[in-house]
Amino acid sequence: MTDFVRRVLRPETPDFPVRSLLDVDFYKFTMGQFLHKYYPNVDVTFAVILRSKSIPLMDVINQEEMIAAFNHLLGLSFTRTDLSYLRGMNLQEANMFSEDYLKSLAEFRLPQWHLDARGEYTVTFSGKAPLVSHWETLALSAITELYFRSLMREMTPTQLLVLYTRATDKLYRKFEQLKRHPGIKIIDFGTRRRHSFLWQQKVVEMAKEILGPNQFLGTSNTYMAFHHDLEPKGTNAHELPMVATAIADTPDEKRAAQYMVLEQWQLMYGQNLRICLPDTYGSTQFLEGAPDFVTDWKGFRQDSGDPYQKCREIIDWWKFKGADAKKKLLIPSDGLDVPLITGLHESFSSETNLSFGMGTLLTNDFIDCFPNLDDVVPKFGLSWRELFRAFSVVCKVVEVNGRPAVKLSDNIEKATGPADEVLKYKQIFGNKGLGSQEVLV
Amino acid sequence: MTDFVRRVLRPETPDFPVRSLLDVDFYKFTMGQFLHKYYPNVDVTFAVILRSKSIPLMDVINQEEMIAAFNHLLGLSFTRTDLSYLRGMNLQEANMFSEDYLKSLAEFRLPQWHLDARGEYTVTFSGKAPLVSHWETLALSAITELYFRSLMREMTPTQLLVLYTRATDKLYRKFEQLKRHPGIKIIDFGTRRRHSFLWQQKVVEMAKEILGPNQFLGTSNTYMAFHHDLEPKGTNAHELPMVATAIADTPDEKRAAQYMVLEQWQLMYGQNLRICLPDTYGSTQFLEGAPDFVTDWKGFRQDSGDPYQKCREIIDWWKFKGADAKKKLLIPSDGLDVPLITGLHESFSSETNLSFGMGTLLTNDFIDCFPNLDDVVPKFGLSWRELFRAFSVVCKVVEVNGRPAVKLSDNIEKATGPADEVLKYKQIFGNKGLGSQEVLV
Repeated sequence: MTDFVRRVLRPETPDFPVRSLLDVDFYKFTMGQFLHKYYPNVDVTFAVILRSKSIPLMDVINQEEMIAAFNHLLGLSFTRTDLSYLRGMNLQEANMFSEDYLKSLAEFRLPQWHLDARGEYTVTFSGKAPLVSHWETLALSAITELYFRSLMREMTPTQLLVLYTRATDKLYRKFEQLKRHPGIKIIDFGTRRRHSFLWQQKVVEMAKEILGPNQFLGTSNTYMAFHHDLEPKGTNAHELPMVATAIADTPDEKRAAQYMVLEQWQLMYGQNLRICLPDTYGSTQFLEGAPDFVTDWKGFRQDSGDPYQKCREIIDWWKFKGADAKKKLLIPSDGLDVPLITGLHESFSSETNLSFGMGTLLTNDFIDCFPNLDDVVPKFGLSWRELFRAFSVVCKVVEVNGRPAVKLSDNIEKATGPADEVLKYKQIFGNKGLGSQEVLV
Repeated sequence: MTDFVRRVLRPETPDFPVRSLLDVDFYKFTMGQFLHKYYPNVDVTFAVILRSKSIPLMDVINQEEMIAAFNHLLGLSFTRTDLSYLRGMNLQEANMFSEDYLKSLAEFRLPQWHLDARGEYTVTFSGKAPLVSHWETLALSAITELYFRSLMREMTPTQLLVLYTRATDKLYRKFEQLKRHPGIKIIDFGTRRRHSFLWQQKVVEMAKEILGPNQFLGTSNTYMAFHHDLEPKGTNAHELPMVATAIADTPDEKRAAQYMVLEQWQLMYGQNLRICLPDTYGSTQFLEGAPDFVTDWKGFRQDSGDPYQKCREIIDWWKFKGADAKKKLLIPSDGLDVPLITGLHESFSSETNLSFGMGTLLTNDFIDCFPNLDDVVPKFGLSWRELFRAFSVVCKVVEVNGRPAVKLSDNIEKATGPADEVLKYKQIFGNKGLGSQEVLV
C-alpha cells in the first residue's frame, strides 16, 4: 500500500545534509546559554571563511542545493523531545541548562543567511549573538557535504565503490593503530568538516565498536551523542573572547576581556565544563597574564601552534603555578591524525591527562582514496587529488556591534579579521609565542 | 558495499515486537518512582490473564518467537539518551523524576519471566514491585503483536493488502467522525493491545496529522511520545491500590489503603498528575468514603462499569462535595470507540472537562477488515471473524508478599483474583454500584 502512496509523493524525501537542530556541536548549547545570559542583545555577523584558497568551493557546490539546504534549516525548530533531552543533560549535575534558556530554545529559529555580496566570504549570518552562533557548525557541515556530493556526481559507480572501500579501510587502520595504545583517549570533533552526515554516523559507530568506552570518550555532535548513546562533549570556543574583546573599548579592557569571559563561565558551569581555550590572542600572553583562578580550571584545549611546544608550555605553566599537572586535562584538537596523537601521547602522558579531539581527519579522510588520482575532472579543471582532500573552512564571528572581530591564534595563518585590525590586536596582545604553520584542515 | 556485508550477516535484523524499554505506557515511570520510594522491597507476581476465553492465544502464537521476544527484553537497559529524556520531562515542572529514581533506572533490568506451569495464566513475572511492574505493557504489546503475526502468516499477499486497506480506511473514518466534534479530545491509550508496533506508529502519525494538537492530546506510550514529539500521558493504575490493599491486614486497613496511596501520590507529584482511578474496589464505595483531599484532585479516570452512569456519579459527587465540576477533568478509558465517545461528550461536556483515552479500538480495530470473514483457518479451526478481532488480555498483579491480590472494578467481569478472595473483598468493600457488562477489549 505504501508503494502506491510513494509513487504519488516525491520519489525520495529530500536528503538535506543537516536535518535537525541537534546536529550541531554541543558547545553551541553551553555557549548558547552563556550568550543568552551575558550577551543576549549583542549584534554579531558570522561568516564562512575558506582558508584553503585552492579549493573552488562555490564553483563545485550546486548553488540551488545550498539554498535549499540553508532554507530548510531556517524552518527547523527544537522538538519537545530535543528539549527534554537537553533539560535532562547532566554532564556535571542535573539542571545544567536553566528553564529560562530552555524556554528560549523552545522559540528558537535560526536567523536569516546571506550569500556574501562582497565576495569576501562565502556566506554570512547576522543577528543576535545567541541565535547566530548556532549557524557555525550547521553551515560548515552543510557546505562540506554539498561540496563532496557535487564532486561525487562526477564519479562512476565503480569509482565510488573503490573510494568508500579505501576510506573505510583507512578509517579502520586508524582505530587499529589507536587500539595498540590503550591509554590514548579520543573524542569525535569532526562534525563541521565531515564528509557527510551518514559517514560521520559510520565513523561514530565504528569508533564505539572498535575503541570501546575507554578509548572513545564521546562526540561533540549532540545528534550523534543522542542517537548513539554517547556523552556529548565540548565546552566553549574562540567566539566568546572574540565577542567580549570586540566590545571592550581600551587595550587594557581588551586584554582583560579574555579572562572576564572565564569568570562569567565559571559562575555558570561547574568543574567539568571548565576547560580553557587559551590561544585566541596567543596562549603565551594568555598564560603570562592569567589570574590565579585559571589555575583551578580542570584543563586546557590546545588548538593552534606547534602542538609539542604548546602542550609543553601549558604543562610547565601548571607546574610553575604550583598546580598538580597529573590531575589536569589537556585536549589537543588541532588537525590531529594518529601519528601526531601517538607522538603527543608518548611525550606527555606521564605528566598529565590527555584526551584528543580528532576532527576532519577522523570524519573526512578520503585523501588518496580516489582510484585515478592524477586524472583531471573535466567539469572543474583540477585533478581528483586536488579536489578530493579535506580542506580548511571555518565559520567565525567577524563583526560585533558594528566593530570588526579578530582572532590571532598561536598560528598566524589561522588569524581572522581585517589586516589592519589584526595588526592592532597584535600590538595590544604582543607577538610572543606566535608562529606560522601550514593549515591543512 | 553494505550489500556485501548484509549478505554475510542475517538477512534481516530480528524484528522483535518491543525493542526499547521506553516502549511502555508512561505511567510505568510515574508509578515506578512511586513504588521505588514507598514499596521498594515488596515482592509481587504479575500474570498475563486472557479474558477472552474463545481466543486460542497460546495455540496461535509461535512459542519460539515469544521466548525470543521476551528474552530480548531481558537484555534491554535504558540508554543514556532515554535517561536524559526522562530527567528532562517536565509535565508539571522540571525534575519530576528524582536523581535517586533515575539512578535505579540506569541499573534497571527486567526480572525473569516464566511460562505459567499451572496453566492458569499465560506467563508470570515475579520479583520486586518497581521492577516487575514494567512487564505489564511490555508483555501485553509483545503477546498481542505475536498473535496477529502468526495469524497473518496464514494470509496471501492480496488478503493482507485488503486487510490493511480496510483497517486504514476504518481508522481514518474514526478520525473524520471525531473531527466533526472539535470539542472532543482524545489520548492514545492503545499500547498494550496494539495490532503491532508499526501500526501504532501509523495510528499516532495519522491522529497527529488529522486531529491536530487540539483534539489529539498525546499518547500514553513513552517511545511514541519521544519519537513523534508528543506529550506522554498517564498517571497511575490499579496496581497501586491492589498492592497497598493486599499488604494491609484488617478490613479497616484494606478500606483505608485505597486512600493512603493517594496521599502518598500527592506528596510525590503536583496537580497535573493528580488523576484518580476510583474503581479498583468499586467507585461507589470509593466516593462515599473518600477523604476531603480527594475533592481537590484534578480529575478522575473512568475505567469500568456503565460509562454514562459512572460519569454521572463522579460529576454528582463533585457537586455534592462543593467542587466546581467545570474545572475538573474526567477521562473515560474503558473500551471506547467513536460512538460512545461522542455520546459521552454530548452528555457531559457542558458539565465538566473531558478527555477520552482510546485504547484497543484505536490501535487494533481490524474487526471485519478481513476479506473472507466466514472462512475457517485450517491451522486453527476457527473462522477469521472469530480469530481476527481485538481481544481482552491484561497483565495484573496477582500476588503481593505471598498474599493474593484482588481487583473488583465496577464491572464484576473485570474482577481479578481467586474466587474466594474476590468474595472476601466484596464483603469488605460491599457490592454497591457494581454491575456486569460484557468485556470485549
